[in-house]
Amino acid sequence: MRPDDKARAEGGPIAIIAGAGQLPIQLVKHLARTGQDYRVLAFRGFAQPELRRQAHASVDLLDLKTIMSTLDGWRPQAVSLVGAVRRPGFSALLGAYSLLRNMQEVKEVIARGDDQVLRGAVMLLEERGHRVVGAHELAPDLVAGRAFQGALQPGEDDRQAIAVGLDLLTSVSAFDIGQAAIVAREHVLAIEGPEGTDRMLRRVRELRQSWFGLRRNREGGVLIKAAKRGQDLRVDMPTIGPRTVVEAARAGLSGIAIGAGSTFVLEQEKTLQTANRLGLFLVAVDLPWMDAFHD
Amino acid sequence: MRPDDKARAEGGPIAIIAGAGQLPIQLVKHLARTGQDYRVLAFRGFAQPELRRQAHASVDLLDLKTIMSTLDGWRPQAVSLVGAVRRPGFSALLGAYSLLRNMQEVKEVIARGDDQVLRGAVMLLEERGHRVVGAHELAPDLVAGRAFQGALQPGEDDRQAIAVGLDLLTSVSAFDIGQAAIVAREHVLAIEGPEGTDRMLRRVRELRQSWFGLRRNREGGVLIKAAKRGQDLRVDMPTIGPRTVVEAARAGLSGIAIGAGSTFVLEQEKTLQTANRLGLFLVAVDLPWMDAFHD
Repeated sequence: MRPDDKARAEGGPIAIIAGAGQLPIQLVKHLARTGQDYRVLAFRGFAQPELRRQAHASVDLLDLKTIMSTLDGWRPQAVSLVGAVRRPGFSALLGAYSLLRNMQEVKEVIARGDDQVLRGAVMLLEERGHRVVGAHELAPDLVAGRAFQGALQPGEDDRQAIAVGLDLLTSVSAFDIGQAAIVAREHVLAIEGPEGTDRMLRRVRELRQSWFGLRRNREGGVLIKAAKRGQDLRVDMPTIGPRTVVEAARAGLSGIAIGAGSTFVLEQEKTLQTANRLGLFLVAVDLPWMDAFHD
Repeated sequence: MRPDDKARAEGGPIAIIAGAGQLPIQLVKHLARTGQDYRVLAFRGFAQPELRRQAHASVDLLDLKTIMSTLDGWRPQAVSLVGAVRRPGFSALLGAYSLLRNMQEVKEVIARGDDQVLRGAVMLLEERGHRVVGAHELAPDLVAGRAFQGALQPGEDDRQAIAVGLDLLTSVSAFDIGQAAIVAREHVLAIEGPEGTDRMLRRVRELRQSWFGLRRNREGGVLIKAAKRGQDLRVDMPTIGPRTVVEAARAGLSGIAIGAGSTFVLEQEKTLQTANRLGLFLVAVDLPWMDAFHD
């Protein structure tokens, strides 16, 4: 489909469609700091209050008509979908999408995992003539490079856990699940589902409390978090931050490994300091499937 | 290694080493009903009080010396490990096993998943000259056959979910994880880790409550539970019962699919009635990797 020139303008602002979490806030800070022109469209019930206050417009997640007409008014040079949203129910999604598209096609897209639904949103925006970019393209500074590294190094057990974790994530990525896993040596403690990383870490903490009672020693294990094989980095790119480190420490882990070049680290200095203070290693590792990345 | 004739006697009793849950109780009832001679060795802190009261001996999970000497006294014709135990900490396992075996070998076994640890226990028993059998061999009536079926049938969405779930379980079984998963159409909601099926079901219930608030409609989805590919059915064979059905209903699922010929159903009548009453389908499906089963 030929881009619609009415939808965007080369000199237009960058439009940020913002969901939950710290990432949209950090991205907007970055855009402001570097003097770029931007507009924020915040999802009600998801975007943080701090961001809602400075948003140029707020909208309900499923109100696609208002989303599209707001963007039409802005004529942005690029659009970025940033921050988490909870997947709405099947019938709610079906109703919202069917305003715009063929019902059967919609059904096929949303029967699949979260990524497919987000990719559906990207597709809709592109069909309207928008250029959809990833937050990593707008703010490459927020992405962990290969050099990202805390004060501590993973031990031999941890390296084994990282290798097993990467293998496991490769195996499950075809199912649009598993952006993260927790592994101790070769023992898989959890695979992340739609509940997200923080809840997975709490699950492992509870599991270990029920095993060991009040732990006195750290039991070890590694959180491995990486973009899925073939994942479109413009949606749902993996993100960690200081809170992730705190939750990992509470779960008794010895460290965190993230995919180099494809993971956001919020507040990098604070994240590294938190890891050093709590005695966790933090490393960025090359992903074997990195070449397969959609950009 | 040549079996040690002192360890077992052809006419000896069947020794049940009993962990947590209903399965050991049901198995003992079956043995009593069919007039078989048996002895129960109950794990303290795991075996249900009902079973503890009729146990012939109780022992701590890691007290391998007492376990072995008790069995030596009984000279059982066969030994069966039945019911769940929580995986002890790495160092506790290391200490217990190292009484009997080479330290490096022990480390390699227990660095892996739960199955490996249990297989290690089977190996130890076999080396002492015992014949280790699965509960399914002692009480085949407790196993769901292909004909196991509730009043309701899975719909088309459910059949798709079952196919995706079986594919997924095949993919992860190499990692000694994933005896169960929950899938709605093609959307994977959870993969079971060491927390077990009940907790996984509760996780999906909570996830959906956070998505939808107080649900009014059942959102659908299927619990797929099956022996892992290559799993030794003598340890940790998949088990469901009435409680599984109740938890599945609370999670908003439309039904349960289990591996035919390799899944225990506790209280089959009550399980079926509960499913029928709560409007869930229950089916036993052929596992594509069934030929690869040990034993």
